[in-house]
Amino acid sequence: MTRFRLVLEWDGRGFLGWQRQPHGPSVQGALETALHEVTGEAAAVQAAGRTDAGVHALAMVAHVDVMKPFAPFRLAEALNARLRAAGARVAVLAADVAPPGFHARFSCVGRAYEYRIVCRRAPLTFEAGLAWRLPRLPDVAAMRQAAGYLVGRHDFTTFRSAQCQAGSPVRTLDRLDVEARGERVVVRAEARSFLHHQVRSMVGALVHVGLGKAAPHAVRAMLEARDRAALPLNAPPDGLWFAGARYPATEPGVSERFTPGLAPVEPTIGNPKTS
Amino acid sequence: MTRFRLVLEWDGRGFLGWQRQPHGPSVQGALETALHEVTGEAAAVQAAGRTDAGVHALAMVAHVDVMKPFAPFRLAEALNARLRAAGARVAVLAADVAPPGFHARFSCVGRAYEYRIVCRRAPLTFEAGLAWRLPRLPDVAAMRQAAGYLVGRHDFTTFRSAQCQAGSPVRTLDRLDVEARGERVVVRAEARSFLHHQVRSMVGALVHVGLGKAAPHAVRAMLEARDRAALPLNAPPDGLWFAGARYPATEPGVSERFTPGLAPVEPTIGNPKTS
Repeated sequence: MTRFRLVLEWDGRGFLGWQRQPHGPSVQGALETALHEVTGEAAAVQAAGRTDAGVHALAMVAHVDVMKPFAPFRLAEALNARLRAAGARVAVLAADVAPPGFHARFSCVGRAYEYRIVCRRAPLTFEAGLAWRLPRLPDVAAMRQAAGYLVGRHDFTTFRSAQCQAGSPVRTLDRLDVEARGERVVVRAEARSFLHHQVRSMVGALVHVGLGKAAPHAVRAMLEARDRAALPLNAPPDGLWFAGARYPATEPGVSERFTPGLAPVEPTIGNPKTS
Repeated sequence: MTRFRLVLEWDGRGFLGWQRQPHGPSVQGALETALHEVTGEAAAVQAAGRTDAGVHALAMVAHVDVMKPFAPFRLAEALNARLRAAGARVAVLAADVAPPGFHARFSCVGRAYEYRIVCRRAPLTFEAGLAWRLPRLPDVAAMRQAAGYLVGRHDFTTFRSAQCQAGSPVRTLDRLDVEARGERVVVRAEARSFLHHQVRSMVGALVHVGLGKAAPHAVRAMLEARDRAALPLNAPPDGLWFAGARYPATEPGVSERFTPGLAPVEPTIGNPKTS
């Protein structure tokens, strides 16, 4: 048996979310079906994070155990061919043999999300469902100030959904940056782990402040309320992208890095003759 | 009667191209239908360029004559509402009253396209149909060298489709830049006007060189052949985006600019209270 580590990208518009569902398409379901077609085996695919319906991934890390021998590159190519044939907008960007003891979810020590906002009057065309449209540019400086109250270790009860199953509402938010360029605003969030709807809830609060409906320090009061009812606005799933997962370094001299630079994964699939 | 100038964006995946077609959806058709619903008038919308099926626009300039009085902002909002209701992925980004004598096509003195290439083994997910996927990174330096042979005034017979209706195959190519970042390559082309399939043909030739199938100077031979059969490869429409149109300055002190900065258009629709 070999445990493979996969880096995945998907367009969340066609899915009910990561987790396999009896009543509709899921990313996990699409992958497990493709895997069954390729290997003849019924294996469960585990991911670093379970995303909701309509949420996208730029670089999700997952693992799967396969009994038959496969070169990682061949497994990735075969999965991509099946996914494509099935019309599933999921792609395996990279694959390698997982280091000993690796678990995509339990070994993960950092998760990164980005939230994309496009500020304009006109409806979105090619980005419909891929970003949150605001009719005007929010006050980005106010959003940054508000974000400062959320960074650090806090009880995020206000910022998690009523359905959140985490044992504790306490999380340590390592980063919550607001970047603006032209009509685009991107919020980047990093933490060891997030509560259910936490990123969308935080973005909702920041936008509420950015649109002038509350002062930046109101976010501190929302946090201290420890009450879901204190959240003024939850951002839609459209703009949310899982951007990377981080794992402890398994080789000396290699530091922890987020997925896009995950050391041993990319060379396996990338073309070595790149010039 | 008022002539309105419009800046349009569209996702070309759902259209047979700009031009109204009897047998399927076109951007012009979608706009003219929306306009009829809004104004009750049957007016023709003219654009700076007529794009093919599957080609996208970031900032196409168009004009239309309307008899009923409309504030440009209201006309844009009403058109967007109708386009959205019709499920047409076309958006009016900006609208204003055209300067005297303005014609979106005949007044246009510059057109800009960009061609998006994503280099990776995995199929595209959210960018499927919006970029050309190459399985590996081309030699960008070789592509730049090849592009140098195409810039300037030439007979582009090799680089136009057999269906091209232009009277002369001679065009002056002002710019053909190749930009690379990570797995992405973007080719930017600017000219007063282009022949049918010219950008896709040029990109095809550059990629042929970039993949090592010909030396950069082979592009010079293709050009000198003045023969469509000398073109090794035509790039697919997927990656092609109309990026801007340029018009002579109508006000003193305002220089010619490409659409995104078109002076009097944007403030009309943008929110003046932007902070």
